[in-house]
Amino acid sequence: MRFGALLSGGKDSLYAAWKVMQMGSDIACFITIRSKNAESYMFHTPNISLTRLQAEASAIPLIEQETEGIEEKELLDLATSIHCASEKFHLDGIVTGAIQSVYQATRIERICHQEGLWCISPLWQCDQETYVRSLANEGFEVIVAGVFADSLDASWLGTHIDRTFVDRLKKVSGKYQISIAGEGGEYESFVLNAPFFKKRIIIEKAEILFKHGAGNYRIISAGLV
Amino acid sequence: MRFGALLSGGKDSLYAAWKVMQMGSDIACFITIRSKNAESYMFHTPNISLTRLQAEASAIPLIEQETEGIEEKELLDLATSIHCASEKFHLDGIVTGAIQSVYQATRIERICHQEGLWCISPLWQCDQETYVRSLANEGFEVIVAGVFADSLDASWLGTHIDRTFVDRLKKVSGKYQISIAGEGGEYESFVLNAPFFKKRIIIEKAEILFKHGAGNYRIISAGLV
Repeated sequence: MRFGALLSGGKDSLYAAWKVMQMGSDIACFITIRSKNAESYMFHTPNISLTRLQAEASAIPLIEQETEGIEEKELLDLATSIHCASEKFHLDGIVTGAIQSVYQATRIERICHQEGLWCISPLWQCDQETYVRSLANEGFEVIVAGVFADSLDASWLGTHIDRTFVDRLKKVSGKYQISIAGEGGEYESFVLNAPFFKKRIIIEKAEILFKHGAGNYRIISAGLV
Repeated sequence: MRFGALLSGGKDSLYAAWKVMQMGSDIACFITIRSKNAESYMFHTPNISLTRLQAEASAIPLIEQETEGIEEKELLDLATSIHCASEKFHLDGIVTGAIQSVYQATRIERICHQEGLWCISPLWQCDQETYVRSLANEGFEVIVAGVFADSLDASWLGTHIDRTFVDRLKKVSGKYQISIAGEGGEYESFVLNAPFFKKRIIIEKAEILFKHGAGNYRIISAGLV
């Protein structure tokens, strides 16, 4: 079967795509929604423009769609891009990195049904600690690209998501109810390398923006090696 | 990847296994739980002993486990059989035919997490009418093996699940809130043929048992051709 994978730049979307590849299916394209609204429920991530590099690194075509990020209206933009991707790449279904967010998952599923596409979420309800720990072991190089929880300060930004990260996060997670996978939006991630990448991303220039208890690791320039 | 597929004999479990095959993965074994309790929340189906024939028809090994069918205790039996199947067939994950039942899905997922297995439900939240209509078109020969809803009488038992079935069911479904896929337990099904079967099942002898507004189509003897 041929799938289009929703791509935010973060670990969940790229790991879900990898699981589908491991099942023997093709990822025929990635689909990225670039929201102009930083408060979007569905789509905002700090380094969304860099999904281009991830698509290039994995030699998979990218469908990009901009949205104003107005609630519900942005779903029409998502539907449009899924429709176009499906037509262009003859897709059988869509892959999402949804883990627990019913809000995201049901809306994407509804669009897939309308388009006659299967919707598959390999991470749905997975054990979050096992999953996050497996990332580095399986060849994913991931950094923390945003923090949005009281207990996470600027020192987390740009650090690698590995065993040390999980141990450190677990120390604060129980106390502050932080999901290990960041499913409540506590942190965002960005993938620099994955087992199916033909090149890896190197960050040439980045800045840390942190105020009012939240922050982004904004990549200003990056390349492939 | 290699999956074990939970097999009840009905359409959902065999169609889910078929979708995983289409994704390019192997179904290394089927797993059937035979409950002695006809009221089991998880496992009862009228013709459960005939999953042997379905496994034989598809040339896929079958792991069978009996359970007394006591609530929660039966989950331990499921866990045991998943564990054994995983060891024997080196599984990466389990396939379920769950569509909407959170009760079933979350319990199976929990067991998979404990075993370090992926849990995949290709039919999860699918559009039920589209799915049931696609069965006959995709080469599934399925009959109604049980009816457990006020609006479904003995005349439904043994009939084929095809376009006529869906049209007929839709006439009563709105009025009586019957799910098209029978997800509320309104009806049970049994699969006689599937696109990956090497032989098809023929029913040699069957009886219809119907009383107090519910009934089973009980297959007494069947063979492969």
